[in-house]
Amino acid sequence: MRKEYCGLFGVYGHKLAGKLTYLGLFSLQHRGQESAGLVVDDNGEFHTRKGMGLVSEVFAGKDIEGIEGSNAIGHVHYSRSGQNMEENIQPILVRHKDIPIAIAHNGAIAHSKKIRRELEDDGVIFSTDTDSELILKMYAREKGSRKKRLMSVLNRLKGAFSLLILFPGELYAARDSMGFRPLAMGRKNGAVLFSSESCAFDIEAADYERELEPGEIVKVSKDGTESFFLEKADPCQCIFELIYFARPDSYVFGQSVYEARLNMGRQLAIESPVDADIVMPIPDSANVQALGYARQSGIPLEFGLLRNHYIGRTFIAPHQEIRDLAVRIKHTPIRKAVKGKRVIMVDDSIVRGTTSRKLVSMIKKAGAREVHMRISSPPITSSCFYGIDTPTKKELIANRKNIKSIESYLGVKSLYHISPSGLKKACGGGNGDNFCFSCFTGKYSL
Amino acid sequence: MRKEYCGLFGVYGHKLAGKLTYLGLFSLQHRGQESAGLVVDDNGEFHTRKGMGLVSEVFAGKDIEGIEGSNAIGHVHYSRSGQNMEENIQPILVRHKDIPIAIAHNGAIAHSKKIRRELEDDGVIFSTDTDSELILKMYAREKGSRKKRLMSVLNRLKGAFSLLILFPGELYAARDSMGFRPLAMGRKNGAVLFSSESCAFDIEAADYERELEPGEIVKVSKDGTESFFLEKADPCQCIFELIYFARPDSYVFGQSVYEARLNMGRQLAIESPVDADIVMPIPDSANVQALGYARQSGIPLEFGLLRNHYIGRTFIAPHQEIRDLAVRIKHTPIRKAVKGKRVIMVDDSIVRGTTSRKLVSMIKKAGAREVHMRISSPPITSSCFYGIDTPTKKELIANRKNIKSIESYLGVKSLYHISPSGLKKACGGGNGDNFCFSCFTGKYSL
Amino acid sequence: MRKEYCGLFGVYGHKLAGKLTYLGLFSLQHRGQESAGLVVDDNGEFHTRKGMGLVSEVFAGKDIEGIEGSNAIGHVHYSRSGQNMEENIQPILVRHKDIPIAIAHNGAIAHSKKIRRELEDDGVIFSTDTDSELILKMYAREKGSRKKRLMSVLNRLKGAFSLLILFPGELYAARDSMGFRPLAMGRKNGAVLFSSESCAFDIEAADYERELEPGEIVKVSKDGTESFFLEKADPCQCIFELIYFARPDSYVFGQSVYEARLNMGRQLAIESPVDADIVMPIPDSANVQALGYARQSGIPLEFGLLRNHYIGRTFIAPHQEIRDLAVRIKHTPIRKAVKGKRVIMVDDSIVRGTTSRKLVSMIKKAGAREVHMRISSPPITSSCFYGIDTPTKKELIANRKNIKSIESYLGVKSLYHISPSGLKKACGGGNGDNFCFSCFTGKYSL
Amino acid sequence: MRKEYCGLFGVYGHKLAGKLTYLGLFSLQHRGQESAGLVVDDNGEFHTRKGMGLVSEVFAGKDIEGIEGSNAIGHVHYSRSGQNMEENIQPILVRHKDIPIAIAHNGAIAHSKKIRRELEDDGVIFSTDTDSELILKMYAREKGSRKKRLMSVLNRLKGAFSLLILFPGELYAARDSMGFRPLAMGRKNGAVLFSSESCAFDIEAADYERELEPGEIVKVSKDGTESFFLEKADPCQCIFELIYFARPDSYVFGQSVYEARLNMGRQLAIESPVDADIVMPIPDSANVQALGYARQSGIPLEFGLLRNHYIGRTFIAPHQEIRDLAVRIKHTPIRKAVKGKRVIMVDDSIVRGTTSRKLVSMIKKAGAREVHMRISSPPITSSCFYGIDTPTKKELIANRKNIKSIESYLGVKSLYHISPSGLKKACGGGNGDNFCFSCFTGKYSL
Repeated sequence: MRKEYCGLFGVYGHKLAGKLTYLGLFSLQHRGQESAGLVVDDNGEFHTRKGMGLVSEVFAGKDIEGIEGSNAIGHVHYSRSGQNMEENIQPILVRHKDIPIAIAHNGAIAHSKKIRRELEDDGVIFSTDTDSELILKMYAREKGSRKKRLMSVLNRLKGAFSLLILFPGELYAARDSMGFRPLAMGRKNGAVLFSSESCAFDIEAADYERELEPGEIVKVSKDGTESFFLEKADPCQCIFELIYFARPDSYVFGQSVYEARLNMGRQLAIESPVDADIVMPIPDSANVQALGYARQSGIPLEFGLLRNHYIGRTFIAPHQEIRDLAVRIKHTPIRKAVKGKRVIMVDDSIVRGTTSRKLVSMIKKAGAREVHMRISSPPITSSCFYGIDTPTKKELIANRKNIKSIESYLGVKSLYHISPSGLKKACGGGNGDNFCFSCFTGKYSL
Repeated sequence: MRKEYCGLFGVYGHKLAGKLTYLGLFSLQHRGQESAGLVVDDNGEFHTRKGMGLVSEVFAGKDIEGIEGSNAIGHVHYSRSGQNMEENIQPILVRHKDIPIAIAHNGAIAHSKKIRRELEDDGVIFSTDTDSELILKMYAREKGSRKKRLMSVLNRLKGAFSLLILFPGELYAARDSMGFRPLAMGRKNGAVLFSSESCAFDIEAADYERELEPGEIVKVSKDGTESFFLEKADPCQCIFELIYFARPDSYVFGQSVYEARLNMGRQLAIESPVDADIVMPIPDSANVQALGYARQSGIPLEFGLLRNHYIGRTFIAPHQEIRDLAVRIKHTPIRKAVKGKRVIMVDDSIVRGTTSRKLVSMIKKAGAREVHMRISSPPITSSCFYGIDTPTKKELIANRKNIKSIESYLGVKSLYHISPSGLKKACGGGNGDNFCFSCFTGKYSL
Repeated sequence: MRKEYCGLFGVYGHKLAGKLTYLGLFSLQHRGQESAGLVVDDNGEFHTRKGMGLVSEVFAGKDIEGIEGSNAIGHVHYSRSGQNMEENIQPILVRHKDIPIAIAHNGAIAHSKKIRRELEDDGVIFSTDTDSELILKMYAREKGSRKKRLMSVLNRLKGAFSLLILFPGELYAARDSMGFRPLAMGRKNGAVLFSSESCAFDIEAADYERELEPGEIVKVSKDGTESFFLEKADPCQCIFELIYFARPDSYVFGQSVYEARLNMGRQLAIESPVDADIVMPIPDSANVQALGYARQSGIPLEFGLLRNHYIGRTFIAPHQEIRDLAVRIKHTPIRKAVKGKRVIMVDDSIVRGTTSRKLVSMIKKAGAREVHMRISSPPITSSCFYGIDTPTKKELIANRKNIKSIESYLGVKSLYHISPSGLKKACGGGNGDNFCFSCFTGKYSL
Repeated sequence: MRKEYCGLFGVYGHKLAGKLTYLGLFSLQHRGQESAGLVVDDNGEFHTRKGMGLVSEVFAGKDIEGIEGSNAIGHVHYSRSGQNMEENIQPILVRHKDIPIAIAHNGAIAHSKKIRRELEDDGVIFSTDTDSELILKMYAREKGSRKKRLMSVLNRLKGAFSLLILFPGELYAARDSMGFRPLAMGRKNGAVLFSSESCAFDIEAADYERELEPGEIVKVSKDGTESFFLEKADPCQCIFELIYFARPDSYVFGQSVYEARLNMGRQLAIESPVDADIVMPIPDSANVQALGYARQSGIPLEFGLLRNHYIGRTFIAPHQEIRDLAVRIKHTPIRKAVKGKRVIMVDDSIVRGTTSRKLVSMIKKAGAREVHMRISSPPITSSCFYGIDTPTKKELIANRKNIKSIESYLGVKSLYHISPSGLKKACGGGNGDNFCFSCFTGKYSL
């Protein structure tokens, strides 16, 4: 199964569609820094801009001014697995009977390997490793109207997908029946916009309308928007969007990410209070959770670590001694804030534990008297089967050690993970059963 | 007068001197993003790596692995003024009588144009626009020992300078007699390090030893370190290092930047309390001040704005409508945090007021009921004559409008700047007279 | 129909296969300067190096040292038609049931559009505009052994093709039944090599073994080489390979190109003698023909034009006046050689006549008293249907004007084209009926 | 002493001065492929375009369209010696008392090290290794008018130089008193042009006027042209310009290069006839000499070697076995032309003998029965002291071996070098004493 944690953005019916998509991808950059691309429909002619790297890098050498067309879809890509990456940059554009079709995909088709093999047995050849190509190949073999063909293909797919598909004059947005990945709809002066997260609408000065429902397909054409629905399934929305992936200024699954994280911090303070001098976040992913913990506990917040945002993906560590120093390039301690203090460090999650260990050691060297760690997710014990590139079970520290030995490995006086029920409560209360918790439970719906 | 707000880093006596300098420049990146360079002394052979752009960009294509030599100096550059920029990238390396000399400079020589003209009248030709070259040319015309020549040149210079000068086997670090720009000394396993800010020592796992005294020249050679002193002058250290320039994890002028900013926030809350629901910083430059204000006032801190760190210098705004959206690319409001709230926005300073106005409007559109602005510096009424690229007096909003009309321009219910005496108190109490306040007062020591 | 005048190179069974292919492409560079690529079989793992531009440009930034594997195929591409060129760079590499297949193609499938449409009707999607992809898609839908599937596909193709197909551990080389494009086989220490022209074997220090027969497929595997044959057809080898395309140091269709061109020059002197002072070639394509003419006629050869080989594809003509001068950048007259002389200019062919006209004018301005033009091909009156990118019939000067008016257009005192029978004689005598003369006759075998 | 075999081009008084200079540098590319640059005077503002590589590479990424200004000078550079090459790319541009001055130089100042040291003793610092900078620094220290200062500096220089110096509104062209390097003057619609070789005027559709006299300085300003003269010296023009450096379509030292080389070939045939079947050149440098030999001797010319012009400077030889093949990439034998023949190979010169040896071996392997070598220069026994980058005396094969042993080393049946008197005769008869023969004689005028 392919790992695809990515960002989607689409525009229908705006004369600056390509430029708005370029802008939208900037605000989804946190969802994928490996490659970026967009395809514009310029009155039936499709034009592509694509490349490896950040949005700013990919489009620096390309002619943005010259992107014409009123409909567009774009994609930022995350995963590092896969060879021949140039070929895999999305959106994937093909031509079938002289009609261009572009597709961008966020998610992972659970049985893609199997379908791929069946098609190959039937004489189909693949040029890329993407599920996007798989969907296109399935689509081409269907008969009937676009809608009919699309429904038929998507109903056969099992797994997580949010999709944008661009035909000349038509844009389809689709979300799988479990609703695993988010996909929101917005409006800007009559144009219809789609985005993995609502934050992209803010930078466009567009209005957030709503999240697509699980299993909903929205078709936009010159006749307006129309919705169809795939076969029903139990909702299963990725809880990690709220814990870590999404930006705090986004609404995801209809929920404010900021509020959810503030609640997680408060909940942690309720579930696991500790007598300490300061609360500090691992920046920037746990900033809001730490604020919530501090507010609930009454213990002052301090910024005990500074994150250097200039590092980027291009840091070269040219010597072992330099490589050993590299962790300090990204985070440095603020001695004045932590010296002599009993510190509560708040983080979003622990995966292998190696970075956390280095950060704890750094804070202690900077003078902290003791460190307590509070984590806004339950222990991660299982790999994700819906597209996130988690390590194997063996590498997950929560699988290898009990809490006591993790505390000792990290060098902290105490370690506490939020309870599953506390997390659900933080993320909207009764709504909590709509989330996928399989990385904590090892139980999968598929 | 040239504008030079930059960063310096130097190493003497470490086998990885070039690599440590490369690393050090990463942590000084906030002091200059326009160009970067380093020169290494490899047993008397000097090698250069230089280029336009961020440290990560400049060195990406260069051979870092191959930088050999045990002494090195490096520089990051800030200002955008000046043509033929490639030539001006520091350090400047020349060869005089077959002996290489490299120099890197942070500051501005007040009368450099005049000295330059006198030398030209005497048949000297300049290849760059830098004060570094000017100092080298003056040095070459002196007689006597290196020390004697250097002392003679530096005693004749008026203005702000922190300097690193590399000869084969010798490194000089110098700070002008007013101590305008910082320059710190550190140690790592016997090697001597210099840095504009102490934060660079942290990422090297080196020890911060002390700030150079105003007027101090430290010579490092195989015989160890030795200090000389330039003619005395009244100390005049740039207060904006503590307000804005330096990183909060640095010690500058012997003072914790984090602590100073926390104090500024507290002081603002004491001087100008306001009945409101939340305190929020303009990220990231006022994060610590906002924390101080919240703590002193008891009003809860919220992160009301999110800063997108992926933007970089390369954002292309390909259309007027897109350009109008561009401010949102850097900052987006977190609606959940500000909606319906009476907001205290804390910022470090107001220059022209244009960005502040856009941010206030953004926060209000996101639902804030009213906005109060608190600024951790007094009103800026005068240009800087010591090297910072401030706008002309006419462009400074504090010169053009009184507080009432600035409040109305910004759209805030109240605006308050910290008092000069409050600022001094925040920055170390009685020590306050050692600072340069000329951008607030219009009074210059030179 | 696609235009594909290109070069192929392949190696089976040499530990430096990728590097030898890189080298081979250098010597086939004249057959295609638009893009270059190679695929190596490294024990079943296929690696690709590809890009737009000259071989030297394409591979400059790529890691040649790191290309491992003992079998390889490579391609240089010529035509400028087609959009989305990056996708079209050959060899095309796909994976079918986890088995990589790479294909490189020189030629043009006459009815490719029709087959493509039939496949699309059956649900096939194409990612590129290449015949290579078409062949792969046809292959994937066949059943049986590789050999059986390949024979079935190739027997259904009409048109010109020389092909190299690389499977893990197997390399197939194929030439269409008409033998339109050349494809030679060589040996180097047990390794088997294939090349569009034998000249590539010379730079590899390899031995030229023979040309593949029309309709021959050579399979190379660890068991050695084996030949199969496609259905028979009348030979129809492109005469322009001998007139212009191939390098004079090559053997093509079993014939020395150098000798053929020398014969063409001699034949021209026999068919159309003229009283003149000097014979001069248009360099470099008619150098050998001019030598033949001079030798047969006894009139001295002079180098009347100098060709600047530094121009390349990247010349920018930034202003109309500069553009008008641009033809002189490629060719300049040698005044001393032509001044006051009656000149016989020898060229390989005339297409539109525009360049010839400029060169004649240049030679006359340099002082030539009169110019006679002798052409080593019959008048081109028809477009090529087998893959060469000739202009439309309307643009061909031989279609629009008779000899008299062409003479007057070019500004020459006399113009003579070699006779078809003379050309056949020059190219090997009785063998002449094996050639395709359709661009002179308008008669096509398909 | 610095090695500077380069090309100069300048334009005064043409609205496309920069573009014409760019074009001119293309036709001087053979004089220097390492770097290229130009400076334009746009009404007193000087703009620069510079870079490492071929003219086509250097200017590809630069904005040629935007180069405005009516006066310009340009330079192509040859030598590979010298570090920090970026700094050394000419023209060198400085600003003295706010007035820009640009200089480009072809030649070598014999005692530049000594002058440089004297200036350094007086406090002067150098930024580059170029003689151009030296001349500028000397100029800046003079007093009086531009003309007076320039005359004073140039009269003190010993050695070879052709110079172009651009001031706002004024252009100076100068040739040293010995006339070592060529420098020609041309006209195009009222504009004045300068070029190292006249061939550049041909591509500009400009008229060749004359060569500057040895010791002549031409000043061009809005008042027209004016000539001054440096102190007299015995003429000493580099004979290798006629033998090898200049293009055959150029006039150099007032002499047709083509004619001189044709004469050299004829003279060789007279001095050293041989009973053989064919005459062949080493392409392209001995093409014309071979033609002369063939014509005089009556032995047929053949093109026995083909030169691949696509190689460029970027060929990467990634493995020893590949490196061994590399000589074949540049030259391949035409078997048909040499097989079974007694061959006379004509070349311009022999330096180390290593390449000649490989080519002889290649021709013999291609079937030549015997090879005789005829060289259009006398044996090179001494290094050049006027700027050409010849090997040390020890490396010169003519110093290490006598003719018999060179014949045996090269594998030729006979070897003959043109006689000094024959060479003089070929290059203009009685005029012969004006040439520098020091690389043949070891006697230097300085």
